[in-house]
Amino acid sequence: MAKSTQLIDNEVFRAYATYAAIVLIKMMLMSLITAYFRITRKAFANPEDTASFGKGDSAKKFLRTDADVERVRRGHLNDLENIVPFFGIGLLYALCGPDLSTALLHFRIFTGARILHTFAYLIPLPQPGRGRSVELEHVDIFQQRHLLKYS
Amino acid sequence: MAKSTQLIDNEVFRAYATYAAIVLIKMMLMSLITAYFRITRKAFANPEDTASFGKGDSAKKFLRTDADVERVRRGHLNDLENIVPFFGIGLLYALCGPDLSTALLHFRIFTGARILHTFAYLIPLPQPGRGRSVELEHVDIFQQRHLLKYS
Amino acid sequence: MAKSTQLIDNEVFRAYATYAAIVLIKMMLMSLITAYFRITRKAFANPEDTASFGKGDSAKKFLRTDADVERVRRGHLNDLENIVPFFGIGLLYALCGPDLSTALLHFRIFTGARILHTFAYLIPLPQPGRGRSVELEHVDIFQQRHLLKYS
Repeated sequence: MAKSTQLIDNEVFRAYATYAAIVLIKMMLMSLITAYFRITRKAFANPEDTASFGKGDSAKKFLRTDADVERVRRGHLNDLENIVPFFGIGLLYALCGPDLSTALLHFRIFTGARILHTFAYLIPLPQPGRGRSVELEHVDIFQQRHLLKYS
Repeated sequence: MAKSTQLIDNEVFRAYATYAAIVLIKMMLMSLITAYFRITRKAFANPEDTASFGKGDSAKKFLRTDADVERVRRGHLNDLENIVPFFGIGLLYALCGPDLSTALLHFRIFTGARILHTFAYLIPLPQPGRGRSVELEHVDIFQQRHLLKYS
Repeated sequence: MAKSTQLIDNEVFRAYATYAAIVLIKMMLMSLITAYFRITRKAFANPEDTASFGKGDSAKKFLRTDADVERVRRGHLNDLENIVPFFGIGLLYALCGPDLSTALLHFRIFTGARILHTFAYLIPLPQPGRGRSVELEHVDIFQQRHLLKYS
């Protein structure tokens, strides 16, 4: 197909696409980690999910919350809360035609900070590791916002 | 206005836009379903929401969680967790100028699996219906990621 | 860099980018408000976050939920649930080359309604203030969907 849009020929946009895909895939992995913890910890939220572990009352005891499962779920929600702004503002930023090296720096800082955050949340590392990584991301996104050339 | 961007003249992008709009609208409907269950089950999260049902202590008893409401809310969060990656990676995929029929197949599989997931969650259907639909979506998104031509 | 994409020269797209950035930044502020309430209310979700407030049992009592913290978190989740469809459908809408004044009206109504929603949720204002603002947003997004010219 010849009609490849020219957008993808733009180097900054290509860099954006790569890093956006990395963090989105990372976020999807949180679903798998949640499923893993739900199954190993036997802690489910829906009655129909417990059916394979027994019937009636014996299945009901698996309808519970587990500290590890909740931790992964909070991490997943935090991903959503931070990756959505990055995806949105990064897209607008990439479309403004910024300097390639500056853009790469921004995208890499965010991606690195987010991956660090995930490890800090899941292992868990002592604070302020996790807090610092979120701060870094926020500064990074605000910075991109600031650099939008059209404003 | 003459300045319609050329993007929308791209067939793959148009297909992407259609299916992305469908799943986003579907996600918004979850808000209405939540509101419906909150009102019929009389289970609210905020004191100000219960004001029309009574004052003082009689209103307080409506500040509770309800199994059906929580189910819809989990479904809504699950939508967010899966539609955001689809929207993001699908957008990048569409911009790479893939084959129209392949792209249509991908978008349709995801959209179908997501709608199936919603029904499986809300009715609810016995597992593994819901689990399978999520797996299908994940495979579909990973596949799109893999097909990104620039990488 | 000469390769600024032409997209950003499109007036409607520029308007979209401005308002999308505003609501995304607003959403990120919810993280800071959550952190502020968590620290002032001393209500944390993770054991490692309480480490600076004491050790052992004295720290454990900070692992609790607080009504104000939960309120901000619900507001944040609601932001996600509504800003994601706006970002997605607004983007597709902007790419269809609609009338500038109509588009500006749509983007401003959504942005205004969302900011109103945040104040109504956090102060909190009596209902139906918050409910009405969500309705307004939904109507606004459905309207944009309807106006997509390609369909």
